[in-house]
Amino acid sequence: MTVAGKHANSVPSRTVTDRTTEQLVNELKQRADTLIEALPYLRQFHGKTLVLKYGGNAMTDESLKHAVMQDLVLLGYVGIKCLVVHGGGPEISRLMARVGKEATFVDGLRVTDAETVELVEMALVGKISKQIVQHISQHGGKAVGLSGKDGGLMLARKLATTGPDLGLVGEVAAVDPEILELLTANGYTPVISSTAADAQGNTYNINADHVAGWIAAAARAAKLVMLTDIRGVLRDVEDESTLIPTLRATEVRELMGSDRIAAGMIPKLEACLHAVENGVERAHIIDGRLPHALLMEVFTDQGIGTMIVPD
Amino acid sequence: MTVAGKHANSVPSRTVTDRTTEQLVNELKQRADTLIEALPYLRQFHGKTLVLKYGGNAMTDESLKHAVMQDLVLLGYVGIKCLVVHGGGPEISRLMARVGKEATFVDGLRVTDAETVELVEMALVGKISKQIVQHISQHGGKAVGLSGKDGGLMLARKLATTGPDLGLVGEVAAVDPEILELLTANGYTPVISSTAADAQGNTYNINADHVAGWIAAAARAAKLVMLTDIRGVLRDVEDESTLIPTLRATEVRELMGSDRIAAGMIPKLEACLHAVENGVERAHIIDGRLPHALLMEVFTDQGIGTMIVPD
Amino acid sequence: MTVAGKHANSVPSRTVTDRTTEQLVNELKQRADTLIEALPYLRQFHGKTLVLKYGGNAMTDESLKHAVMQDLVLLGYVGIKCLVVHGGGPEISRLMARVGKEATFVDGLRVTDAETVELVEMALVGKISKQIVQHISQHGGKAVGLSGKDGGLMLARKLATTGPDLGLVGEVAAVDPEILELLTANGYTPVISSTAADAQGNTYNINADHVAGWIAAAARAAKLVMLTDIRGVLRDVEDESTLIPTLRATEVRELMGSDRIAAGMIPKLEACLHAVENGVERAHIIDGRLPHALLMEVFTDQGIGTMIVPD
Amino acid sequence: MTVAGKHANSVPSRTVTDRTTEQLVNELKQRADTLIEALPYLRQFHGKTLVLKYGGNAMTDESLKHAVMQDLVLLGYVGIKCLVVHGGGPEISRLMARVGKEATFVDGLRVTDAETVELVEMALVGKISKQIVQHISQHGGKAVGLSGKDGGLMLARKLATTGPDLGLVGEVAAVDPEILELLTANGYTPVISSTAADAQGNTYNINADHVAGWIAAAARAAKLVMLTDIRGVLRDVEDESTLIPTLRATEVRELMGSDRIAAGMIPKLEACLHAVENGVERAHIIDGRLPHALLMEVFTDQGIGTMIVPD
Amino acid sequence: MTVAGKHANSVPSRTVTDRTTEQLVNELKQRADTLIEALPYLRQFHGKTLVLKYGGNAMTDESLKHAVMQDLVLLGYVGIKCLVVHGGGPEISRLMARVGKEATFVDGLRVTDAETVELVEMALVGKISKQIVQHISQHGGKAVGLSGKDGGLMLARKLATTGPDLGLVGEVAAVDPEILELLTANGYTPVISSTAADAQGNTYNINADHVAGWIAAAARAAKLVMLTDIRGVLRDVEDESTLIPTLRATEVRELMGSDRIAAGMIPKLEACLHAVENGVERAHIIDGRLPHALLMEVFTDQGIGTMIVPD
Amino acid sequence: MTVAGKHANSVPSRTVTDRTTEQLVNELKQRADTLIEALPYLRQFHGKTLVLKYGGNAMTDESLKHAVMQDLVLLGYVGIKCLVVHGGGPEISRLMARVGKEATFVDGLRVTDAETVELVEMALVGKISKQIVQHISQHGGKAVGLSGKDGGLMLARKLATTGPDLGLVGEVAAVDPEILELLTANGYTPVISSTAADAQGNTYNINADHVAGWIAAAARAAKLVMLTDIRGVLRDVEDESTLIPTLRATEVRELMGSDRIAAGMIPKLEACLHAVENGVERAHIIDGRLPHALLMEVFTDQGIGTMIVPD
Repeated sequence: MTVAGKHANSVPSRTVTDRTTEQLVNELKQRADTLIEALPYLRQFHGKTLVLKYGGNAMTDESLKHAVMQDLVLLGYVGIKCLVVHGGGPEISRLMARVGKEATFVDGLRVTDAETVELVEMALVGKISKQIVQHISQHGGKAVGLSGKDGGLMLARKLATTGPDLGLVGEVAAVDPEILELLTANGYTPVISSTAADAQGNTYNINADHVAGWIAAAARAAKLVMLTDIRGVLRDVEDESTLIPTLRATEVRELMGSDRIAAGMIPKLEACLHAVENGVERAHIIDGRLPHALLMEVFTDQGIGTMIVPD
Repeated sequence: MTVAGKHANSVPSRTVTDRTTEQLVNELKQRADTLIEALPYLRQFHGKTLVLKYGGNAMTDESLKHAVMQDLVLLGYVGIKCLVVHGGGPEISRLMARVGKEATFVDGLRVTDAETVELVEMALVGKISKQIVQHISQHGGKAVGLSGKDGGLMLARKLATTGPDLGLVGEVAAVDPEILELLTANGYTPVISSTAADAQGNTYNINADHVAGWIAAAARAAKLVMLTDIRGVLRDVEDESTLIPTLRATEVRELMGSDRIAAGMIPKLEACLHAVENGVERAHIIDGRLPHALLMEVFTDQGIGTMIVPD
Repeated sequence: MTVAGKHANSVPSRTVTDRTTEQLVNELKQRADTLIEALPYLRQFHGKTLVLKYGGNAMTDESLKHAVMQDLVLLGYVGIKCLVVHGGGPEISRLMARVGKEATFVDGLRVTDAETVELVEMALVGKISKQIVQHISQHGGKAVGLSGKDGGLMLARKLATTGPDLGLVGEVAAVDPEILELLTANGYTPVISSTAADAQGNTYNINADHVAGWIAAAARAAKLVMLTDIRGVLRDVEDESTLIPTLRATEVRELMGSDRIAAGMIPKLEACLHAVENGVERAHIIDGRLPHALLMEVFTDQGIGTMIVPD
Repeated sequence: MTVAGKHANSVPSRTVTDRTTEQLVNELKQRADTLIEALPYLRQFHGKTLVLKYGGNAMTDESLKHAVMQDLVLLGYVGIKCLVVHGGGPEISRLMARVGKEATFVDGLRVTDAETVELVEMALVGKISKQIVQHISQHGGKAVGLSGKDGGLMLARKLATTGPDLGLVGEVAAVDPEILELLTANGYTPVISSTAADAQGNTYNINADHVAGWIAAAARAAKLVMLTDIRGVLRDVEDESTLIPTLRATEVRELMGSDRIAAGMIPKLEACLHAVENGVERAHIIDGRLPHALLMEVFTDQGIGTMIVPD
Repeated sequence: MTVAGKHANSVPSRTVTDRTTEQLVNELKQRADTLIEALPYLRQFHGKTLVLKYGGNAMTDESLKHAVMQDLVLLGYVGIKCLVVHGGGPEISRLMARVGKEATFVDGLRVTDAETVELVEMALVGKISKQIVQHISQHGGKAVGLSGKDGGLMLARKLATTGPDLGLVGEVAAVDPEILELLTANGYTPVISSTAADAQGNTYNINADHVAGWIAAAARAAKLVMLTDIRGVLRDVEDESTLIPTLRATEVRELMGSDRIAAGMIPKLEACLHAVENGVERAHIIDGRLPHALLMEVFTDQGIGTMIVPD
Repeated sequence: MTVAGKHANSVPSRTVTDRTTEQLVNELKQRADTLIEALPYLRQFHGKTLVLKYGGNAMTDESLKHAVMQDLVLLGYVGIKCLVVHGGGPEISRLMARVGKEATFVDGLRVTDAETVELVEMALVGKISKQIVQHISQHGGKAVGLSGKDGGLMLARKLATTGPDLGLVGEVAAVDPEILELLTANGYTPVISSTAADAQGNTYNINADHVAGWIAAAARAAKLVMLTDIRGVLRDVEDESTLIPTLRATEVRELMGSDRIAAGMIPKLEACLHAVENGVERAHIIDGRLPHALLMEVFTDQGIGTMIVPD
């Protein structure tokens, strides 16, 4: 059975069965109550922009994937402008393996030659982005895939490193949000891949967490949400019960200066920091392994995961 | 404690208590699931117009009242343009009693002299409409009260009757939806009282059910929802279990020609018939005694009450 | 014969009688000359906003009433955006008398309990405002009645007094002119009643003169015109020949500090002062007992009554 | 003393002299009454287009000239879109005399060679049109002079005649009202000279009455008004008391077929006929020797001169 | 040296050398003459839409590639809205070879399994489209890459064949040009890859020639231009001198029914036929091996290659 | 043969003759190359405003005249907003001679009485401007002739001189570019004559070079181009080989203070100086005797004539 079969647009025709039962009315009432509980959050975020960094299990698990798409489409219907930035490590590795290209690492960072960056772009733009666009479409939304090259969205530059040359690993040099505004103002959800060219036309692979942070700042987003495979920022990386619910910008800096943080968390914290220090109200690192984690974050007070706020 | 105190705009600050418990996550998950279940209905009604005839218990019971306002504000946030038409029998009677004006009835219809219509207008426009406007505002929406006189919305004419003269009882002669379109396009919910003047400037009291039907047709609404104090149209008026879930226009005509229908149901059926025969897709007579009956109707397949559809 | 009969929209068909007579041509010439004399004022006020505080005899005398409506409609046709703020003391008193509610006064100020404020709102919003709207409509204009609650126009707060508690007597805490701009930009004349709610949803009765002054300031009006039952501000309240034609803001303050001013004039002067000290170019207190006093004020150099200007 | 000195934009400062006298109030009241009498006409013509054929004494007499300009500016302020088409016989003759160019006539029609048409264009476009534009400006309006060549307004073709060749005498082949709509929608009054080029670039002199009729039809005007030096269409050309107040299109045709009509009236009647048979509601031939004849026509029931209406 | 180095946006600073020589003036004059010769074509195509099918040598040869990009950017600057549809056979084959995927053919058509369509999409969307977007950007234009999935541009369906199952080879079921209009109206050039999904979410590879024809029809293009590696449609496929300069739709049908046409020409002719029979004025099959063949086609009378016109 | 015959809008039908010859392809290729060379200039000036001072031989020589019109129309099609300011000395002299009006000069400046200024206005506005408008139209553009009086474009004042009274010789007191913006935004080329009235309604003749400089500054033009009958600014007025290619504002001032400059060059330099000191990026004095000198200037690096830039 196809996805479309499960999530099709049509509303089933009204049926009568059991409609007199009290049980049904109770169910409906619960449903209505839950919708009403969402009201304060609708008020708060209506017309605002939200950037979702989409990655990890939520991108590979079929069921989680559809839950994220539903969340995005729903947020669109309630008047929140969503931008999606996606990663794609596993898909890149899979494609590299298929073409027999071996990965080389220097100090844990992948050396990216011209052939690698071409494979990265094909995997991200030609496969993952199109899947996301297609899934949003199937759930009733309208999306357009963009790389940094499209509409002049992002200009890249070679990442400055002190160690050996990593090749075509880049960073965001500039963001021009014009194409994002055009698309969101007309009801399209931009789906952004983390590749871009520099002024000379060289293509770079950029860390997707960073791209999300920089896009959020340029688009003056109200919220940046990063889906990860962990509960949030932990005091003790071994112990999920040590979740830190809220961090101010200064505390994030301190934490990054310490050795208490998992390596994979660093770029996420950098992105959140950049965002909240450039006009984004709140950034969140949340557990994408929970279905509908995005909705949970937007539509509850307690929130989930770690929230990062400006000083 | 005031309503505003309970439903204020601010989202409570994030608290940490118990956030690690599995129970919370389960609750959040249920909430998200319910929101997701609303998705097909959001798709279906986004950008459409809904006319609510508001009356009965839902207008007098404090708790039901706030539930209706929440429903309206929520529908507005999810992109449905709502128009409210309200009645006000009890409030009219109360004001008449206060000024010592006795009601006269001919064949069950109230004889409306100039003094009466003035009291009717004061009660509807000066009291009930303002309360609704104010409540919508408190729940985070923006509303504007209108009578048929405002912005040339409705032209009335004297109701043609075969019996004795009823005085200033009118019917809708014409609707100019321009002011409704201006307001809804700019995010305001029109709240419409059922009084209007004829070309000579005489004010008439018009049946609010009729007004709702005519407004729905003129505004090319997708849905007309009438809140009543009964489960819907019943086969046996004594037995609520004989609810008729769906009626085609032709069936409504037959039913009105029979003697199986309660007197109070007649104007509602007439209004629904006018609506569905003039472009409204579906009209609903539902039980306003259920809190959030409006949301239940919009966001479920089974619907509640009786649905009237074109032939 | 109804008003509509006299003031209907149709232009009578061309008749030939007497058209050759010199007398007719002379009459037409005089009419044309008068229109031409209006030209400098058209130039001056075209596209500007004018706030009219409407009250006193001009609101109770049938003939004066229609003269005011004609003035408003005419000003609309020549490109002046009019806002009407109305009072309604006599109508309030009449309704209170009908329900047998006795007025209590403390130091000359009416103690306003919940029941009173409800009657005030019904009389102002449900009766007077609708009459004005209807009359404007009959003279060919389009109007919409608004209270402070509609479209979030005004936020009230309890009037701070040093004496005993006056109950629900309020003052303007904030004005949001958005709904006014929407309506006037689309050719509608807003007709504003002087009731509004506070943040907790309590309804207050506010002095209509004050409302006019605050609305004029918020709407960046070029002119505020207050219709009264006196020739203007008098040096000697007993002697109408002591009219003061012009007052600067500072002079108004001095005058209010003296005991030479009638009590009823105080809120009017306060309103004019607030207006001219907040961007309104000129405020006028004029004699509403003169038919077409508003036109006289707008379309002559000498003006009538007292003009208040910024320092 | 210059015109501007007399008609400057500034409103004289408020003076107090005599303001207490009853006489002043009476004068003001009369003025207001006259303005109010204009109300039905404002309603009728607001937003409509009026084409004025301007010529004869009204164009040469200094005082009449300014009266026409005032009328145009006033009509503009009250929301009527005016287009002016002007003639210029005397000025053309004067310029021809100055350059020593002798006029040749064939059957009463001027033979127009290349040199003549050049002089015609200079007199109309370079002198008369600029004067009108300048006068409108001095009275507070904004005008732009146009010939048929500007913005592709009119395409001419050689006038087909059965007699000898008249040279560069043309007729209207096509009107493109785009530039007129752009200008009137932005508050400019187009002032149109009756010269235009054909597809080959040859310039023609066209009868200005005709141009007015064709422009009125193309601009979907509500009214075409032709200023002449006679009271209107007369039954007996010798006797001004035989004015025909109203003519239907069919009657105009009959009249033109008879020999009872003055030669100079023929092109005016042809223009009016073309206008009312192509969507213009009413055409008027009125006496431009009366100051403010245009206002008199627009703002009275009886009208002046002869009105031509469709069958 | 990079492309950007050669084609950068900056205009070199004015130099003086040799500016007095007659030779320079002659060169400039020739340049100006050539620009002037383009004037009739600017008039003809200004504001119109042109669809370019981009493929063959023009897509692989570095120098030809940049010439096409320059042509597109230039056409954009002179007010022609360009849409690009690209193919990508060689790149697809290259990627398949790299992953060791062997191509299977049935009757000359490639059997496309799920793995193949994934590789096709990566090569087209993730590599070729991005290169085109990037090159347009480097030459001063703004482009956005789209597949059929983006913005709901195209709906695919399985290609109906009489022979054995070809797998995921599709055809265009529907085109929604909304996203194209949004982008071109805002100055972006859409670059379209020929993959799309069906209603069930299955991805198909569609013939790019067909996509170009269907897009041209849906976008109401004035011109469809197909870049090929041959001079045009030949009477004798062996002899380039037998070029057919013009074909009417009926002649195309006859030709396709004969055996005189090269297999690769069939889809191109089908696309052109669909276009001209659905509102496109002219379709062209031209020789992409000539640098600037697109400009040559647009800016000359003779045109190049074969022009197909409606009957 | 008429101009229109040579420059008609229609694109000749496609012919086959010789299309197979290599020679044709070579010609087309050269044409395409030349267009491509224009690309950097299109990028640079797209959407910018250019003011052309049109005069001298380019206005009297038939062939040069059409070349200028073609240049203007072409610049319009490639998105450059052109404004034309024209002079007309010879035409004025010719008209003065025809009416037998003798010119009087004081210190080389023409004494301008009322009769003279009237002739100037007729020659400029009624003849030259209309010719330019007509020629632009014949080449496929849309133009509207304006004097300083039209749309309130320019206010004049009497030129202040130390010597004897020159009569109605004026200078620019103010420019209101509103009408220019309205016209250019809608695709019309304004053609501006150098006459204007002062606040009292007196008409003045203004130096056309000055008008061009002031219009360029008010319209925030990117470029002012003055067509003259000389190669540019010369170091030695006797020797055309001493052309100065570039001058900074300061150098212009120095040059004007010296005696090395031809009298006729002074107002041109003053105009250029005013322009570049008020926001215009570059002003050019170029040789209008070269056909298409305007295109040559815009579309080459070397430029022609003298370029004046801000300090």
